[in-house]
Amino acid sequence: MDSTKTERFKRGWEKLKEIDGQAGVNVIESLKDISPDLAKYTIEYPFGDVYSREILDNRTKEIAVVAAMTAMGNARPQLKVHINAALNVGVSEEELSEIMILMSVYAGFPSALNGTSALKEVIMERKKEE
Amino acid sequence: MDSTKTERFKRGWEKLKEIDGQAGVNVIESLKDISPDLAKYTIEYPFGDVYSREILDNRTKEIAVVAAMTAMGNARPQLKVHINAALNVGVSEEELSEIMILMSVYAGFPSALNGTSALKEVIMERKKEE
Amino acid sequence: MDSTKTERFKRGWEKLKEIDGQAGVNVIESLKDISPDLAKYTIEYPFGDVYSREILDNRTKEIAVVAAMTAMGNARPQLKVHINAALNVGVSEEELSEIMILMSVYAGFPSALNGTSALKEVIMERKKEE
Amino acid sequence: MDSTKTERFKRGWEKLKEIDGQAGVNVIESLKDISPDLAKYTIEYPFGDVYSREILDNRTKEIAVVAAMTAMGNARPQLKVHINAALNVGVSEEELSEIMILMSVYAGFPSALNGTSALKEVIMERKKEE
Amino acid sequence: MDSTKTERFKRGWEKLKEIDGQAGVNVIESLKDISPDLAKYTIEYPFGDVYSREILDNRTKEIAVVAAMTAMGNARPQLKVHINAALNVGVSEEELSEIMILMSVYAGFPSALNGTSALKEVIMERKKEE
Amino acid sequence: MDSTKTERFKRGWEKLKEIDGQAGVNVIESLKDISPDLAKYTIEYPFGDVYSREILDNRTKEIAVVAAMTAMGNARPQLKVHINAALNVGVSEEELSEIMILMSVYAGFPSALNGTSALKEVIMERKKEE
Repeated sequence: MDSTKTERFKRGWEKLKEIDGQAGVNVIESLKDISPDLAKYTIEYPFGDVYSREILDNRTKEIAVVAAMTAMGNARPQLKVHINAALNVGVSEEELSEIMILMSVYAGFPSALNGTSALKEVIMERKKEE
Repeated sequence: MDSTKTERFKRGWEKLKEIDGQAGVNVIESLKDISPDLAKYTIEYPFGDVYSREILDNRTKEIAVVAAMTAMGNARPQLKVHINAALNVGVSEEELSEIMILMSVYAGFPSALNGTSALKEVIMERKKEE
Repeated sequence: MDSTKTERFKRGWEKLKEIDGQAGVNVIESLKDISPDLAKYTIEYPFGDVYSREILDNRTKEIAVVAAMTAMGNARPQLKVHINAALNVGVSEEELSEIMILMSVYAGFPSALNGTSALKEVIMERKKEE
Repeated sequence: MDSTKTERFKRGWEKLKEIDGQAGVNVIESLKDISPDLAKYTIEYPFGDVYSREILDNRTKEIAVVAAMTAMGNARPQLKVHINAALNVGVSEEELSEIMILMSVYAGFPSALNGTSALKEVIMERKKEE
Repeated sequence: MDSTKTERFKRGWEKLKEIDGQAGVNVIESLKDISPDLAKYTIEYPFGDVYSREILDNRTKEIAVVAAMTAMGNARPQLKVHINAALNVGVSEEELSEIMILMSVYAGFPSALNGTSALKEVIMERKKEE
Repeated sequence: MDSTKTERFKRGWEKLKEIDGQAGVNVIESLKDISPDLAKYTIEYPFGDVYSREILDNRTKEIAVVAAMTAMGNARPQLKVHINAALNVGVSEEELSEIMILMSVYAGFPSALNGTSALKEVIMERKKEE
């Protein structure tokens, strides 16, 4: 695995910072010692390849991802990163609440309630940081 | 359980026909004998209550639902109904493909491949019906 | 979304207090600011509609729900609310342990172990409150 | 792995035939060539150990298992075996429908709809066999 | 998205043919019209990047993947592709049966039974093709 | 349920101590009051029966189990026990990291990231204990 930074890596790193902000940078940092290659792939494939595509805009991408992770219900830290990202790219708190209500239909009320509680935590954490 | 039709039921039934079209009506028909109350609730809560909300538009709702059901990967018949619904409310085939690519990141390549295969089936079925 | 309280809401609110007790009221309280509509729906559909049905008695309903949430394994806070509810409506600790053993067969030993640990926590919390 | 039949095996085999009937025997038959040891374990642990316990009666066990497998939504053949088993031990069609309605709350409407469709298939298959 | 084939693509395409054989090529073919970009990514990331890594040998990789997909239980077509791949790289039928037995502990007997039935299907399909 | 210890129990208890070490003993201890029968079954079936089989060696078993539990993503305490077990039977930290990278393909990046974070925690806990 060569360590020279590819175009995909550079594009991914910019995209990650644009969308996820500090929360995304922290995820990458936490991987430095334990799995630098997973850090590299996380930058290259999700961000350098997929998020850099332009058919869906950032808002739509984050709405889809927040819906999916709320429905799956087994990755709360990443759900919170993406709720943050959604707020960063202009999805409103009200729209995020709305996605959770929608998920009560497709994944059940426990998923909707846990998604809403993650949303509440993110909003409070953002208020503190202001 | 009284059988008079509530406002929620009427509103839900119109919404279901608007969004899901014949595929949605078929789901309700199939429940007639076995579980008329589940049919009633399916009309009232998902459609009469949730889909009738107006904070997210129909396009955004369907994008969120298709993403969630692709990620969950355990409800192919309903995923196909919602791919159909998404096409009905103006989400393009290309945008749906894009959601599947996005899900490869969050739920893995098998979910993305199965979602794409469901999309392909729906497109072919719609072509036949034309 | 009109704010007048429907029959379903009133019936649901009574049912929620009857079955879930304070734990259920706390869930609704926690939603007040962030998503009052999800609070309303949680009262109306799960409790006003579904829990108010009388074909299965409360004991049977809670046994089914505890089994399902133990098997899914991704909603511990709600599992604990329902273990509490089950104890409230007369399911014994021994019967709840038994459900967890049963789930080792259908969802694997990790689900059974996590369900049993949730049961243990609930029992200890109830002892403290006496 | 010795081939002499243990007490657990004998007890499990009787229990399997009592509860699952021919559908259960067929599952074991299908394993004969490919994995005789999985057949043996399926008889010994789920039936010889767990189903032979007497704290929950057969009806309650099947209600819990049908609820769990409807919620998980990824094992339709086994869900159908257990819907059959539930009918065999005296759970009514109406009660099974009711479990599916209950699961719409905890695992979402797609799980409830797929569970109800499995129930419908089982009822039709049983009618044919009469 | 430029169409010139990258090193990762070429390496991935060779790796995919080496491991998955015709079954893998068929997956890529089926994506040609509907989502050529998902085809490209499937070659580049899973095969060009991940499968080309050399810390785990091919046998170990396939054992891990078959275990994971048996446990998840929601992607039978891909499970069958990987059972095939495992047999291609030298995992024996007996070892694959053994993985299914192991999964009965961690994901429950339904997952183990469905995994074993997928294994049986693959073995029969391979016999036909001989 | 007789309390005399069967051969399976004795063999399972030795196997559990051999593979999981103190972390496994702690799991059994925690079940003592709440569910002694689940403790007994956990020793007898997973360890006395399944882990005592000799077709796959301990290393291979732990690789399969860590992969499966990382993919399922809903049983972090048990995943950590098995990461520990894997290290105990000679799987290296690097190989475990590699399994997490592999899972990014099949279960998505959130599962891979959470698995890697569990690995990091286990490594740090083991360093403290030295």
